[in-house]
This record gives sequence, structure tokens and C-alpha cells, in this order.
Amino acid sequence: MKKILVIGASGTIGRAVVSALSAWHEVIAVGKTRGALQADITRADSLHALFERAGRVDAVVAAAGRVHFGPLAEMTPEQFQIGLHDKLLGQVQLALIGQHHLNDGGSITLTSGILGDEPLRSGANASTVNAALEGFARAAAIELPRGLRINVVNPTVLTESIERYDPLFRGFEPADAARVAQAYVRSVEGAQTGRVYRVW
Amino acid sequence: MKKILVIGASGTIGRAVVSALSAWHEVIAVGKTRGALQADITRADSLHALFERAGRVDAVVAAAGRVHFGPLAEMTPEQFQIGLHDKLLGQVQLALIGQHHLNDGGSITLTSGILGDEPLRSGANASTVNAALEGFARAAAIELPRGLRINVVNPTVLTESIERYDPLFRGFEPADAARVAQAYVRSVEGAQTGRVYRVW
Repeated sequence: MKKILVIGASGTIGRAVVSALSAWHEVIAVGKTRGALQADITRADSLHALFERAGRVDAVVAAAGRVHFGPLAEMTPEQFQIGLHDKLLGQVQLALIGQHHLNDGGSITLTSGILGDEPLRSGANASTVNAALEGFARAAAIELPRGLRINVVNPTVLTESIERYDPLFRGFEPADAARVAQAYVRSVEGAQTGRVYRVW
Repeated sequence: MKKILVIGASGTIGRAVVSALSAWHEVIAVGKTRGALQADITRADSLHALFERAGRVDAVVAAAGRVHFGPLAEMTPEQFQIGLHDKLLGQVQLALIGQHHLNDGGSITLTSGILGDEPLRSGANASTVNAALEGFARAAAIELPRGLRINVVNPTVLTESIERYDPLFRGFEPADAARVAQAYVRSVEGAQTGRVYRVW
């Protein structure tokens, strides 16, 4: 029985991850405004307060973070900052702060996405952020002490979301959130570190 | 004969790139404080002023940008921001702004580095930023109009710098800046886009 924080727990992926992990573990659902605990990953003070409340944990899962979608020709540096500040730095600082609140052998699981490898029009910010998160996990994995692990789940578009994005993901094979959630379970339960779990 | 802006022209790579391209082209050396023109890639207004001064160009090469080196266990979100703001967003906004000042068929060449693929202790910020720049170029390449191209050069540690970093790069085969510069020449002269030119 592990004690697991799931950040982004009210999102489509987060709900599926909470549901999958709850079969065996104590899962604390964390949302920005909902969930058992609240935290804003873009604010370090909010993450410090989260771990203060939660106490030591065995795993942290991040399924949260915004990016900007828009044509490259019109993209401004300010818009590009959205993904850097939110999905990228938000998840990174969750790892930087969280590493000190994990029990020995604990794990951190972050979320990238298929656009890092398979770019789409209007998706340059997402591609950048997803590739960055995978680079971060590769590097962090070799430095974490005490048997701590870090991995990234890289999901394709969700069956639950593909229509909302139409026509962006035409030709992409979607995956159900419940299937994507299994990759998070493998990351939490497994022995790997520095791994990217692609679900596509 | 192309008109080429080289940003970071007084760095070890920049000098070698200026030297290599000057054999055939009009090269404008741009530094933060030195060079024929000055610009700070971390400031959008400075980049707008640069293109105002330089006029339309055929190629932009970026060999500039700082990252933070330090142990993961002590890294703060503020320190992590250094690489995101400087090397990553600096080069990205050079591309975002530069795309509108390039002649048809022009090119943008950015600089990542070996740590994106081969992490080192203390290098998590560099690994993240380098992976991000490659993700950005893959995505930007499919959106650029008018035959514009974008590539990334991913150099290993330089022969000229390896001792300064010792012991970090022990076991890495260094490359001379003059050899690394040839990858920038291939990016500028070639027809490829969305490519990462590894020099290692």
C-alpha cells in the first residue's frame, strides 16, 4: 500500500489514474480548485504548502499543465511562455520540491504527450514542452538519491477529447483514458527510471 | 551570396561559424555587447530592434543562451528558470520574431547540445532546454511558410572548453569548434528542415 499524490486529479487522465491506483493504494486527489487537497503547480509556495499538508508520500503523479495552441506565424513570446511556465515549469518544480518529500524508493511520474514527437499545426508550444519534460526526466533520473525514480507518460490524444480538438487530431489513433492510466500504474509500480512510457 | 545574422558571434562556436560562413556570404556578427550589431535574445524588444537595423536576411544562426548548472537536489525553480528564459525562450523568440524578417527560402539554425540525450550530474536544466529546442524545431518546421526552414545543431562538448568543465565531460569525445561550425554551414546551405544535426 503506497501513499500517492495525484495532481490534476479532476482532469480526464487524472480521474482515470486515481481510479486505477485506488484499487491497491491510498490515493490523494489534488486539484487546482477540487480534490481532497488543492495546489497550483505554477506556484512554488502552493506546492510547498501541499507537501506540508500531505506529509511524506511514496509517489507523486502529475497530470496537469496548460500549453498554448496557435499558429506559429502569430505566436508571441508571451504566448509561448504559457506552456513553459505552466505545463513545463509547473511539473518540473513539482519534481524539484517533491523529491524532498518522497520516501526512499518513491517515484515521480510526469506527463508529456504525443506532440513532442508528432507535431501538429498550431502545436509548437506543446511540442517544445513535451520534449522538454522528457529531457528533464532523463537527466533527473541519474541524480535522484535513495532509490527515487522519475518517469514520463507520453499519451496520444484521448478518445474522450479527440472530438473537441477536431480537426487537429484526424488520423491519430486515440486511446481511452483508462488505457493511458495503466502507463502511470506501470511507472508507479515498476522499477524503471528515466523512462518514457508512450501510449500510442 | 546570402546575408546571414549570427547571434552569439563572439562565443567559441559563434566565432567559428562566422569564420566558416564568411568564405561565401555576408555575415553580420551579433553579440550581447560586442559584434557589428548588439542584441539580447532574452528581450523581445532587443530582437525587434536588431531586425529593424539589419533589414531582411537570408539566414539567422543562434549560438547563444545560458543554462543553470547545479545539483538536482539543490536546484530551485528560480534557477531552473534561467535556462528556460535564456537559452530556450531566447532562441525560440529569435525564431518567432525572425520568421517575419527572412527572405523566401531563408533559414533559422538554433543550438541545443549533447546533454539533451546524454545527461550529466548537475545538467538537468541543460538537458531540458536542449530537448525542448529540438522539439520546437520539429514543430516549427511544419508550419513555416515561403520555403523557410529551421534546424538545430546539437554539438558535443568543445575541445576548446572541455578542460574548463573538468571533470564533467570526462569520457566525452570533444569536437573542435571549427568542426561543429560545419554543421551550421550544412543547415544554412542545405534543403533540410526540422533536422537535428548532431556533432558527436
